[in-house]
Amino acid sequence: MPHHDIDAVPGRPAAPAPEHGELVPYLHGQAAEFLRALRRHREGSEATDPELSTRSALDMRRAARRIGGALHTFRPLTDRAWSDPLRGELAWLSGTLAREHAHAEQLGRLLEGLQQLGEPGPVPAQGSPRNATSRNGASPAPPSPPAPSRETTLGIARAGALLERQLTLARTRAHSAALQALGSSRFHAVADAVAVLASEAPVAPDDPAPYAAHAAHRLTEAVAVLPLGRAARPYNAEAVHEGQDSPWHQVRLLLRLHRYAQEVTGGDTTALAEASRTLDRHRDAAEAASAAAAAARTARIAPATAYALGVLHSQQRHEVEAARFAFQRQWRLAAGTPTREAVSG
Amino acid sequence: MPHHDIDAVPGRPAAPAPEHGELVPYLHGQAAEFLRALRRHREGSEATDPELSTRSALDMRRAARRIGGALHTFRPLTDRAWSDPLRGELAWLSGTLAREHAHAEQLGRLLEGLQQLGEPGPVPAQGSPRNATSRNGASPAPPSPPAPSRETTLGIARAGALLERQLTLARTRAHSAALQALGSSRFHAVADAVAVLASEAPVAPDDPAPYAAHAAHRLTEAVAVLPLGRAARPYNAEAVHEGQDSPWHQVRLLLRLHRYAQEVTGGDTTALAEASRTLDRHRDAAEAASAAAAAARTARIAPATAYALGVLHSQQRHEVEAARFAFQRQWRLAAGTPTREAVSG
Repeated sequence: MPHHDIDAVPGRPAAPAPEHGELVPYLHGQAAEFLRALRRHREGSEATDPELSTRSALDMRRAARRIGGALHTFRPLTDRAWSDPLRGELAWLSGTLAREHAHAEQLGRLLEGLQQLGEPGPVPAQGSPRNATSRNGASPAPPSPPAPSRETTLGIARAGALLERQLTLARTRAHSAALQALGSSRFHAVADAVAVLASEAPVAPDDPAPYAAHAAHRLTEAVAVLPLGRAARPYNAEAVHEGQDSPWHQVRLLLRLHRYAQEVTGGDTTALAEASRTLDRHRDAAEAASAAAAAARTARIAPATAYALGVLHSQQRHEVEAARFAFQRQWRLAAGTPTREAVSG
Repeated sequence: MPHHDIDAVPGRPAAPAPEHGELVPYLHGQAAEFLRALRRHREGSEATDPELSTRSALDMRRAARRIGGALHTFRPLTDRAWSDPLRGELAWLSGTLAREHAHAEQLGRLLEGLQQLGEPGPVPAQGSPRNATSRNGASPAPPSPPAPSRETTLGIARAGALLERQLTLARTRAHSAALQALGSSRFHAVADAVAVLASEAPVAPDDPAPYAAHAAHRLTEAVAVLPLGRAARPYNAEAVHEGQDSPWHQVRLLLRLHRYAQEVTGGDTTALAEASRTLDRHRDAAEAASAAAAAARTARIAPATAYALGVLHSQQRHEVEAARFAFQRQWRLAAGTPTREAVSG
């Protein structure tokens, strides 16, 4: 029998609460999604269809995250002796399933970043060589070859090869780990628990709204400590270092919990999903910058390779800054607050 | 006797023009400024006061640029056989005087940039290590040491030492070249010409307004081809390469000419001076990025040094992008156009 905090809240009416069934069908629905994805994953493995397997693994992760998130937010409505361990196992599973995908995404992001560095860009309309921008004289200068130099191009190619080698290795390892996890008895226990959840959820039929409101409140509090005013000033160089990342990462997680809670209570999640994607981009860029820095610590790399990795690192840290700018704008627009950058800067 | 284009303009009234003396006193005034600065420079040299010498050289350059700019814009009012060669000599002189200062400024900018990279930044309020930003799980993480790593710090120190060595050498050479120039008969001829200009300027007493308007028009035309719409979208990554710099550098030069012409005709130059400083910053950042890239091509540097130079290059290219953003805002505000970033991306 689930027992929950809300019984202890003073002033709560003794009369039976109205029927609030939102959480139960949500858990049923997500559990069913999980099981369908698991079935597709097995079909994909049997048919050696790696694309189907990959997609199904992501769908499993998607459902596992939602179940875990709902169990977190609506914990007082659940039997904790059941929900707390299940939540932990779902986090383990979604983490394991995420890793292969994350390495692939990161490699894609970094190679795309390198490609941007390597592209000469459109030929300028009124070209002039670098050194024609002398500190005196107003005469227009002759056209010039566009950047980058040949040295840069070579460094970019080598940096790309290095990152591809390192991240493909990491991805392969994550793939093996995920396969191993999906064959383990630990996974089968999770799948069994989810199968039970698909038909019966040990959850109190109370109103989930106060818990959803609490998730919203935690998010608002976490956003309040973010330096949104500074983020609203473009090119503030606040994201040069990763030292200030964690409050943003924390908001990303709380935003996701809030979004799932809104899914439970039937709120509009369009703006939340957009803001979530922005903070995913923030996290992805931060991790890509770290990967570039890590690759630069590889022994015996050429200076040109290290140089390209330094440029790439900085580029990704600027992406972090750009994501913060985008988030503050989305947040203010959602809150109906006028954006700052029209009056500042 | 000066002869000038405006005599040939059809429809011009044959009656004597009203007295328009703005250009003559401007040239007189700037020539006097030049001579005073030259006297101070000599006093500084005799008293071995390098600071006074440096400041006086910059004042000389300032006056030389204004005389040259005015002779350019109001060329049809001048005797070209006199003004064209003088303008060339003034450009040579201001270029020579600028170089030492430019190397010093560039070194300062780059060392400041490196310092920013090396600073750990304030300790985050809610710290968590990089890898605690896992793709699942919502629990807050323990505090972490702020970036940068020790490897980065070493690379930054070595990159700083390398840049200091290279740019100090360049500065010393520029200093010698400037001293040599100021002792040359070529310089004495320029100083003699300016001394004549301080009391008599071979300039027609016509209305300078049409020529000032033409300078404004040339500037407006050059700004019209700038991608101001893209520059108004922060973090557009349009300045990754230097290939697109030259139209901006061109606007910088035309803006300066327009500003000097406004000084002649008594217009308000406050907003123009601000926009000029922004485009100076654009040029300075572009040149600093080139210097970082050039330093990275030094033989036998350590990968950590090259990495730091790569980060620095990218940082300066982002400064270029930031200056474009600032310029489009200043330009639109000056023109009374609403800024774009309030409604776009």
